[in-house]
Amino acid sequence: MLVGVVDSERRIVYRATAPSHGLRQDELLETLERELRTARQARPDVVAAGLGIPCTIDRQRGVAIVAVNLEIADVPVRELMTERLGLPVFLDNDANVAILAEHRFGAARGARNAVMLTIGTGIGGGLIVDGRLYRGSTGAGAELGHTVIDADGPRCQGNCPNRGCVEALASGTAIAREGLAAAQAAPGSALGRALADGVELDGREVTDAALAGDETAQEVLEVIGTRLGVAFSSLANIFDPDVIVIGGGASRAGELLAGPAREELASRALPPMSGTPVTTAELGPDAGLIGAATMALLELDGG
Amino acid sequence: MLVGVVDSERRIVYRATAPSHGLRQDELLETLERELRTARQARPDVVAAGLGIPCTIDRQRGVAIVAVNLEIADVPVRELMTERLGLPVFLDNDANVAILAEHRFGAARGARNAVMLTIGTGIGGGLIVDGRLYRGSTGAGAELGHTVIDADGPRCQGNCPNRGCVEALASGTAIAREGLAAAQAAPGSALGRALADGVELDGREVTDAALAGDETAQEVLEVIGTRLGVAFSSLANIFDPDVIVIGGGASRAGELLAGPAREELASRALPPMSGTPVTTAELGPDAGLIGAATMALLELDGG
Repeated sequence: MLVGVVDSERRIVYRATAPSHGLRQDELLETLERELRTARQARPDVVAAGLGIPCTIDRQRGVAIVAVNLEIADVPVRELMTERLGLPVFLDNDANVAILAEHRFGAARGARNAVMLTIGTGIGGGLIVDGRLYRGSTGAGAELGHTVIDADGPRCQGNCPNRGCVEALASGTAIAREGLAAAQAAPGSALGRALADGVELDGREVTDAALAGDETAQEVLEVIGTRLGVAFSSLANIFDPDVIVIGGGASRAGELLAGPAREELASRALPPMSGTPVTTAELGPDAGLIGAATMALLELDGG
Repeated sequence: MLVGVVDSERRIVYRATAPSHGLRQDELLETLERELRTARQARPDVVAAGLGIPCTIDRQRGVAIVAVNLEIADVPVRELMTERLGLPVFLDNDANVAILAEHRFGAARGARNAVMLTIGTGIGGGLIVDGRLYRGSTGAGAELGHTVIDADGPRCQGNCPNRGCVEALASGTAIAREGLAAAQAAPGSALGRALADGVELDGREVTDAALAGDETAQEVLEVIGTRLGVAFSSLANIFDPDVIVIGGGASRAGELLAGPAREELASRALPPMSGTPVTTAELGPDAGLIGAATMALLELDGG
C-alpha cells in the first residue's frame, strides 16, 4: 500500500508504504485508515483522499466490489473512510488512476487512444479511448492483466479462474518466480548469491539486480518483457493505440522490460500496429499515487 | 464475395456470390467490377455501392491498405469503382459494417459497448465503444481475429506474422482443417462419408453436417467454439461489453458454436464479465451485406 500527499503542483510532499498483501479484509481497512490518519497528521492541509484500489469499483456507490489479489469484497470504502476520517474520499481502480495521470501529465499525454498495464503483485489495466477513461458497460472493464496469452498456461493467481493470463506469466509475482528459478540455476550470479544470503527474491529484488547489471536478472526481465509483448500484440491489434505504457513497480526496469516487449510486439502485430510505441510510465511507480490525487481533485471539482 | 442489392426496408432484393479467395489483385478488382455491374443491371434503381472488405481501410481516401487473406494492397478502390461504374462507392472493413448492421438492427441493438467476430476464411473484428464504431488511432484497429490465444500456437494465416491468433485456431479455415482430421478419424461419420465421396470439406460443409446432426462435425464445432471462448474471455475482461456477437458464414452454426464459446467464457472471465451474453448475428451471414448498404446510405446522407 503506497500512501502519499500530493500538492497542487503534483509534487509528492509525503510518502509512506505499508504491506497489504495477505491481509484479511478488516486488517486491510484498519491499515488503510491508520495510514490515511498518519498522512493527514503529517500534512494537516489535506482536503480530500483519492484511493486507487486493485479491485473492481462501483464508482457511483463508492464500493470495492471484487479483487483478484486482495481480500476485499463488496465494501462501501468511500462511505466507511469518509465517516472515519471526516474527509471527502473518492475511489477508483488503481490502473485507471495510473493511466489518468500518464494521460494528463506523462507518457500518454495527448493520446486519443492509449493502453497501460501496471505491473505489481498482479497486472492492472487502464484504457484511454477517444480521449477518455474507458470503464466498460458495468464499470468492471479494462482488466487487461487478464488477457490470455496461453490458453493452456498456468492457473492465474488470486481469485481469477482463468489460465495463461498475462498476469499469471508476467506480473511481479511471475518475475519473483522466474527470478528464484534463475537464481537456483546460476548460483554464481548476483541473484544466486542474494538467494544464498537468504534474501527473499521478490520482483523488486530481481529488478534491482537487473538494473545493477546482473545478467541473470536481466535475462529474467527479458523473458517477462517478451511475454508482455505477446499481450501487447493482441492489445495493439485490438486498439490500434497511440501508445502502450508499462507502469507499476516493475516500470523501474525501463528498457530492460520495454525493449523485449516492443520487439515482440513488432514481430507479431499487424502493420501499422506493429510500430505502436511502447514506453514505461513517465511518472514511474508514482503514476498511481499522482493519479489517485488527480482523480480526487477532479471529483471535488465536480468530475 | 457476397454481392447484393438492399432496398430501403433492408430487404435483400438481389443476391449473388463469386469466389474471391486466391485471386490476384487485378482479377479481384475485375470480379468486383463485373459483379457490381451485373447487380446494377438486375436492379437499375441502385443509388450507391457500399463495399465491406476484409482489409485495413483508409476511409478518408477510400483506399484498401493491406489484407491478411486477400491479395490487395494500397488500392484506391473507391476512386476506381466510382469511375468504372459511374455510381457513388463507399468502403469500410467488412467486420465494421457487420457490427454496424447488428448494432442498428440486430443482436447488438441498444448496446453501449459490443464486440463482434465475423468468422469466414479469416476472423474479422468489429467494436462498438460508447455507442460508436471504434476504428483505432490510424483506422486499422479492431483486428479482433488477431487476438493471441496461444503464444506458441501455429503460425497465423495469410499475411499475419503472429502465432496462435484466434484466426489461426478458430476461423473457417481452421474449421475445415479440423473437419478433415475428424473425417479421417471417423470414416463412418457423415463427415467421413462425404470425404470418401470426394467432397472438399470446407467450413460450410462441416457446418452443414453439424446442423444435419452429424456428431463428428458437431464435435469439431465444439472445439472451435471453445477456442473462440478463450478469446472471448480476454475480450470480455478488456471491454466489459453488453454483448459478444458471432457473425460471418459460421454464424449459421448458432448454438453449436455459441454454446461452447459462452461456456468457456463463463469459466474463464472475471465476474461480472463471465456472464457476458454470447449470441450469433441476428442478421446471420447477411450482416455484412446489410451493413455495407447501411454504411453507403449513411455516407450518402453525409455520414
